[in-house]
Amino acid sequence: MAIVLAAGQGKRMKSKLYKVLHPVCGKPMVGHVLDTVKQVNCERSIVVVGHGAEAVQSYLGEAAEYVLQEQQLGTGHAVKQAKPLIGSEEGSTIVVCGDTPLVTAETLESLTQLHESRKAAATVLTADMNNPKGYGRVIRHEDGGVLRIVEQKDCTPEEDAVREINTGTYCFDNAKLFAALEKVTNKNVQQEFYLTDVIGILVEQGEVVLGYQTNDYAESIGINDRVALSEAEGLMRKRINHKHMLNGVTILDTTSTYIGADVTIGSDTVIHPGTLLKGNTVIGENSQIGPQSDITDSTIGDGVTIKHSVLDHAEVGSRTTVGPFAYLRPGTKLGEEVKIGDFVEVKNAKIDDGSKVSHLSYIGDASIGKNVNVGCGAITVNYDGYNKFMTEIEDDAFIGSNVNLIAPLKVGKGAYVVAGSTITQSVSENDLAIARKRQENKPGYAEKIRSRAKATKANKDKE
Amino acid sequence: MAIVLAAGQGKRMKSKLYKVLHPVCGKPMVGHVLDTVKQVNCERSIVVVGHGAEAVQSYLGEAAEYVLQEQQLGTGHAVKQAKPLIGSEEGSTIVVCGDTPLVTAETLESLTQLHESRKAAATVLTADMNNPKGYGRVIRHEDGGVLRIVEQKDCTPEEDAVREINTGTYCFDNAKLFAALEKVTNKNVQQEFYLTDVIGILVEQGEVVLGYQTNDYAESIGINDRVALSEAEGLMRKRINHKHMLNGVTILDTTSTYIGADVTIGSDTVIHPGTLLKGNTVIGENSQIGPQSDITDSTIGDGVTIKHSVLDHAEVGSRTTVGPFAYLRPGTKLGEEVKIGDFVEVKNAKIDDGSKVSHLSYIGDASIGKNVNVGCGAITVNYDGYNKFMTEIEDDAFIGSNVNLIAPLKVGKGAYVVAGSTITQSVSENDLAIARKRQENKPGYAEKIRSRAKATKANKDKE
Amino acid sequence: MAIVLAAGQGKRMKSKLYKVLHPVCGKPMVGHVLDTVKQVNCERSIVVVGHGAEAVQSYLGEAAEYVLQEQQLGTGHAVKQAKPLIGSEEGSTIVVCGDTPLVTAETLESLTQLHESRKAAATVLTADMNNPKGYGRVIRHEDGGVLRIVEQKDCTPEEDAVREINTGTYCFDNAKLFAALEKVTNKNVQQEFYLTDVIGILVEQGEVVLGYQTNDYAESIGINDRVALSEAEGLMRKRINHKHMLNGVTILDTTSTYIGADVTIGSDTVIHPGTLLKGNTVIGENSQIGPQSDITDSTIGDGVTIKHSVLDHAEVGSRTTVGPFAYLRPGTKLGEEVKIGDFVEVKNAKIDDGSKVSHLSYIGDASIGKNVNVGCGAITVNYDGYNKFMTEIEDDAFIGSNVNLIAPLKVGKGAYVVAGSTITQSVSENDLAIARKRQENKPGYAEKIRSRAKATKANKDKE
Repeated sequence: MAIVLAAGQGKRMKSKLYKVLHPVCGKPMVGHVLDTVKQVNCERSIVVVGHGAEAVQSYLGEAAEYVLQEQQLGTGHAVKQAKPLIGSEEGSTIVVCGDTPLVTAETLESLTQLHESRKAAATVLTADMNNPKGYGRVIRHEDGGVLRIVEQKDCTPEEDAVREINTGTYCFDNAKLFAALEKVTNKNVQQEFYLTDVIGILVEQGEVVLGYQTNDYAESIGINDRVALSEAEGLMRKRINHKHMLNGVTILDTTSTYIGADVTIGSDTVIHPGTLLKGNTVIGENSQIGPQSDITDSTIGDGVTIKHSVLDHAEVGSRTTVGPFAYLRPGTKLGEEVKIGDFVEVKNAKIDDGSKVSHLSYIGDASIGKNVNVGCGAITVNYDGYNKFMTEIEDDAFIGSNVNLIAPLKVGKGAYVVAGSTITQSVSENDLAIARKRQENKPGYAEKIRSRAKATKANKDKE
Repeated sequence: MAIVLAAGQGKRMKSKLYKVLHPVCGKPMVGHVLDTVKQVNCERSIVVVGHGAEAVQSYLGEAAEYVLQEQQLGTGHAVKQAKPLIGSEEGSTIVVCGDTPLVTAETLESLTQLHESRKAAATVLTADMNNPKGYGRVIRHEDGGVLRIVEQKDCTPEEDAVREINTGTYCFDNAKLFAALEKVTNKNVQQEFYLTDVIGILVEQGEVVLGYQTNDYAESIGINDRVALSEAEGLMRKRINHKHMLNGVTILDTTSTYIGADVTIGSDTVIHPGTLLKGNTVIGENSQIGPQSDITDSTIGDGVTIKHSVLDHAEVGSRTTVGPFAYLRPGTKLGEEVKIGDFVEVKNAKIDDGSKVSHLSYIGDASIGKNVNVGCGAITVNYDGYNKFMTEIEDDAFIGSNVNLIAPLKVGKGAYVVAGSTITQSVSENDLAIARKRQENKPGYAEKIRSRAKATKANKDKE
Repeated sequence: MAIVLAAGQGKRMKSKLYKVLHPVCGKPMVGHVLDTVKQVNCERSIVVVGHGAEAVQSYLGEAAEYVLQEQQLGTGHAVKQAKPLIGSEEGSTIVVCGDTPLVTAETLESLTQLHESRKAAATVLTADMNNPKGYGRVIRHEDGGVLRIVEQKDCTPEEDAVREINTGTYCFDNAKLFAALEKVTNKNVQQEFYLTDVIGILVEQGEVVLGYQTNDYAESIGINDRVALSEAEGLMRKRINHKHMLNGVTILDTTSTYIGADVTIGSDTVIHPGTLLKGNTVIGENSQIGPQSDITDSTIGDGVTIKHSVLDHAEVGSRTTVGPFAYLRPGTKLGEEVKIGDFVEVKNAKIDDGSKVSHLSYIGDASIGKNVNVGCGAITVNYDGYNKFMTEIEDDAFIGSNVNLIAPLKVGKGAYVVAGSTITQSVSENDLAIARKRQENKPGYAEKIRSRAKATKANKDKE
């Protein structure tokens, strides 16, 4: 079992958003914590909610059970709220704060294993800290067991020198936890019920109380303000990048590469600086991604090149190139060896193998076949102010520069639309469509225009 | 009073720009120093200028008084130039170098307080440095007072081991400072008049000479080359970001977020990586800014989204979205819930609430009403080579794709301009305007064109 | 002479690319190593190839001689392969791994000097490491000579405490090296022939064996996985940036500035964050580059401004401005004081002094004279699906907005093409060309269109 403490307000965040809902690498911190405890075979996860209870429950949904801590009377009081749900269960219970997103499943696993193998009543997750200021110190017995946890302000000089701190994460024998909680009082300066008092009570009862020390300082970070939030973001980013590099992904600059927790990347893919990969993005092998690209919930094949572009819910086939400065919006499905060039937007459109939209185009609500060439500045006119209509362009068609295709219409296989035309009706296979006026040259007239413009300017300047 | 030393050339900067004018986080370093001393109730600020005297005075303007150090004969000589202006004043004088932009008002305040409460003749701002190599060491008396300052090269082994260094910032009793300066000679290897000699002279006279140590190593950084300049930039960036985070702003990556010293940001706003906020930019609450946006001297409302865009002297109303890849130039005023999409430039134009310019457009010298839809590729043609003209579009108008609006003209309320039209005259309320040729389809002609193109290619390939 | 060991597979890279071919700051690591040894007057460089032999030889070409190590039987075995080529030479031989791209010529120079001045048989390049775990320890004699190199796993507790490690780079007396190699056996757990055994053998023979310690930890980094690759990239980036800053270049953020090894930058140029400078790019003085620009193999003059743009094999004249959001492709040659604005692509085109292409244009396969104004959305239509054609625009011409220039054609000096025209034939000097239909306004018709559109929407919504 696991109890996740998520009732705090987080005043120092100075936010309208409840503390545990602030995202780290794209996922709310309580989401990270719940995902982590679920990896440690915790069949039941109880989230103690308080401030923002509804918002937290709405985010986590059926992934957890909930108990409400109506008043914030301390961590011991918070844990006690779970009694109606699991007070009579047997076994181990992990207690973890919802604001410690960096605690890992491996560590919780090791913590639980130590706890259970030694039949402990409680095992504290501790960390060694260079500058332990502000943290509760873990005071050990000669035999290595934990004697007590002392808050910074209550430390003797000797205790103050201790660098092993309490991370706030524990494994308890469930029955002994709830029994001891009955004995915790709020007779202290803050008038709060402290979970740490349980440790003292269990030691007094002669129970085995252990400490398990993590090597990774990050696991102890509880996020109370945006400075810590940013630090946690950086540490998690580093972990994620490290994992991908060990899998064979080249990351040229880990400090400016932002990969979400759930992104997948194939080997020999290179991530260039300033790149953000978010949501459930999947990238194949041997692709070049970035620099300065921003990709959300997209699926990208092998050997793809994406530069300085933004993708959102897009699919990109293998060996296709995108950008620089392209914007692929939801519903974009690019085939293989497609070229989407610069200053091109695609939305809700399928573009099949080998087709090219090289520059300054908008393709929206369209279906484009194979080996189609869409000229520079060509636009699918899909919107009349109220409705969106579809454009269909078949294989091998050629759409000239600055053409407007006013949907709904269809351009048949191999058809040719000449540059500068506004097309309102369909064009059949192999037909040519034209809709532009013939050019007239007016000899010497440029000089007249210039004289007029100069005169206008002179008049204006006089005013 | 304050004396700011700003006469040095800064050879190691290898620059045509005078050293103290090099900016840190967007503001010349001497500007930072002057702003800082002005916060410490320094009613008079004397800037000693020398190299680039005119440029420095022109930048600082009336914010300071100036004395010219014609020849650079040492720091003592520099300070002495201020004698005609303040030599006969009573009270405390802060002496600070114009190349130490990271010294803080809090520190100067504390330095002055210690100085005055202890009635000292001089108080040296010192710092503890892990690697003090190259810095003057502060040698203390048993009672804690300062005995002398020893340059690195003159250190005994014992002195060499001292880690407390002279930052080059001081608080002096003004009268005693100028009296002592008269006794400083240039009998040393460099043949310079050193300000540090004043310390020895005052100690010899039995005056109280103190040291005040800052915790922040950054305050001691004097910038002599671009490596130090870049380091100072990074440290100041960190300070600024820290301040915003404590105020409730989320900064996802502090290392790639560049916020100028004078920027204001509301709480719950999120700054995404690669974002630059410059000048007097003001951002409201709950906005999403970035990634990779570059915003100068702009005013942005609440709940705004700006992605991958460049803004310069623009105003953006609440709940408006900008980008990706938009460019808002000076004179842009966007209302509320406006949409400026991708590959759109706006310049000297007002766009009122609820209007949309979704893609590939240029809106320059224009006034656009509410709920107007500007189609993809539509352009205000505002320039004839000599003059700029205004375009006016009233509420609820619909401008089709790839339309040219040749200014000056007005499109009335609810009017409709069809795609592909070049509009040269005004359109009245609820009228429709069209200026395009009807489409012709030429059966089978695409194949002819292709054959001709292939033949041309074949001929070329032969050549 | 130099022997570069480049036969390893690099399994932990998890790559189809051979290890030594992975680039660091844009150059394969073995390329860095070979460039470095060539600076140390190594008249012959032997590269020992094995895995990916062909690919390595194909990359390095005639810059080196090659020997093949068919089976990877250890570093001693690898070096021994060079015997047929240089076994009978006299003099010093540097042995260095192809996966240590950060070793410097200065260090190899000093190593060789020490070696030769002391007439040593072998000199080991060593480094002092805080955490030497995993590295071979260098055990010194009382007189400072090297006694032996002990692998981590064979260390006594005393040896384990030694922090001086073997970097894997050596200088040998060539004859003694190859003589000693004959005595090396593979009687060890790995059954490999170790080069480090040569040290023990030489010591036993009473030869002088020295250690030369580098201060820079980076020089000892051998790259075995992508984590190390990324770290090396960061360290080399730092070195390169440092060099440019000392030369008078301002780099606002060294962590997000990516400069290739062969880039040249003039003094007083400012590099803004998120900028990548690659290949043989040359930048003049006093230019502003970035933020977020990506420049490859381009030549840029003095006083140039480039923002948020991508340049590839482009030339940019002095005082020209580019961007934001411009894309200059190969063959772009911009004169002085040219303006290339936002959402503009230029390819294979010369644009002469003082001309402007301000927004939303594509200029491909073109020659543009001086002081030409290309209007917003104007396009050179250079492609018929098979052939590319040239557009020529002479001095002082004015091309209106959204104009299509269908190549091949020429617009004469001072000619004027009105907005919205599709131009298919040349325009003579000072002529005006027009190709658009006159505007018609249809009173009240906008309302009809809206009603129809609303009805369509209502019908759709019903469905």
